[in-house]
Amino acid sequence: MNILITNDDGWGTKGIRTLTRLMLPLGRVYVIAPEGPRSGAAACISVNKPMYLTRVTDAGEGLEQAEIYTTNGTPADCIKLAINALFKGDERQIDLLVSGINHGSNASINVIYSGTMGACMVAAEHGIPAIGFSYCDHGMDPDLTEAEKYIPDITRHLMEEEVPYGICYNVNFPVGEVEGIQWTRQSKAHWEKELEPHVDEQGRTFYTLIGNFVNHEPEAEDTDEYALAHHRISITPTNIDTTAYALL
Amino acid sequence: MNILITNDDGWGTKGIRTLTRLMLPLGRVYVIAPEGPRSGAAACISVNKPMYLTRVTDAGEGLEQAEIYTTNGTPADCIKLAINALFKGDERQIDLLVSGINHGSNASINVIYSGTMGACMVAAEHGIPAIGFSYCDHGMDPDLTEAEKYIPDITRHLMEEEVPYGICYNVNFPVGEVEGIQWTRQSKAHWEKELEPHVDEQGRTFYTLIGNFVNHEPEAEDTDEYALAHHRISITPTNIDTTAYALL
Repeated sequence: MNILITNDDGWGTKGIRTLTRLMLPLGRVYVIAPEGPRSGAAACISVNKPMYLTRVTDAGEGLEQAEIYTTNGTPADCIKLAINALFKGDERQIDLLVSGINHGSNASINVIYSGTMGACMVAAEHGIPAIGFSYCDHGMDPDLTEAEKYIPDITRHLMEEEVPYGICYNVNFPVGEVEGIQWTRQSKAHWEKELEPHVDEQGRTFYTLIGNFVNHEPEAEDTDEYALAHHRISITPTNIDTTAYALL
Repeated sequence: MNILITNDDGWGTKGIRTLTRLMLPLGRVYVIAPEGPRSGAAACISVNKPMYLTRVTDAGEGLEQAEIYTTNGTPADCIKLAINALFKGDERQIDLLVSGINHGSNASINVIYSGTMGACMVAAEHGIPAIGFSYCDHGMDPDLTEAEKYIPDITRHLMEEEVPYGICYNVNFPVGEVEGIQWTRQSKAHWEKELEPHVDEQGRTFYTLIGNFVNHEPEAEDTDEYALAHHRISITPTNIDTTAYALL
């Protein structure tokens, strides 16, 4: 089994190193990850921009068993680089993409901004089974003990499912001890107060992104946010077909 | 009525200038657009990057009637800048977002990469009615005669619809004469042979994005691609809820 790994926090972060270590016993592992942070990259691709691959041979901790590359591109680019540069355009040689472990939640509305899930959606476009793993804490040194415990089994289980074309999985881990696993839908939510104004040395105003997350339906028991708030791992099947069928 | 306009090709391109001119008779028009091309930006947001707004006062052709700004940010950032910097965090003051007119198709799988539609999805997150307009030709000087003819009526018509939370519209115009309008779903498709290898002056290999579009269901009459191939304007209602409900 050929397993491809990417993320949006960049190679070298704890999440992707952990995921690489967890995948090594499951198959032949290839990593193509951004060389630096790409949080909020969604499925952004590099149009009219040269993309490079750099081989990493000094990963340490035995991770050199994987074939590891970094790129100046985006998480979505990583999938296109893997298919076309590593596997000569034959996506069928990639049996699985795992993306993450993201440092931060990709539940609810975060999925539309997520580079972690953007990569999964590109994989799903190409018929490659894909799972995004995220841990609901933005810190650089998250406690991934529970994620480590569950990820191999979740991966094996989801690989056994019959996945229709265009579907990938968005798996989010709660902070702290896990008390269950739940299939969920994306909770309705939005971000508010998203910009912080500043003044630079030239007296010009500029803005940086911050924001408060506002869950529209905190009582809805079938949502990802509800599962996470109740210490459960949330698994949301996610579709690259964005058609609003109810309206057609 | 306060109308917000953005795009992913950047301010000054023919598509957004045309759209601004078409919207001026319909309400008070605000433009926040990227200062340069952001094709393929999806819903990418600028994390940990200062964002600036620059007022444009010399737009010419009477477009100065609109309040126009450019930014170093992405199309998705433009929506957040509009809500928070222009309208003090009150998204209800924005009655409509129109995005485009994109130079190039955003039908089918292109929607997941589209900065034009990324902006619409952010608007939909905030409950703002949003329409993305795209013309199926990538040239810098597209013939937008037919688009100009139909956009005001399509806009008025879609504004009269009851839009459920989280839904926006993806409107694509065929090249050449229009022979009808069709409600459609997103056609299943993928891109193949997406990378072109090159060698730089230092002898390093780099890649640039190209690719062939492969429609999986060219005979399916209810798809965006079918409508466009039959010289019809395609209108696809698009959902920011990416849950694959059929699998739950």
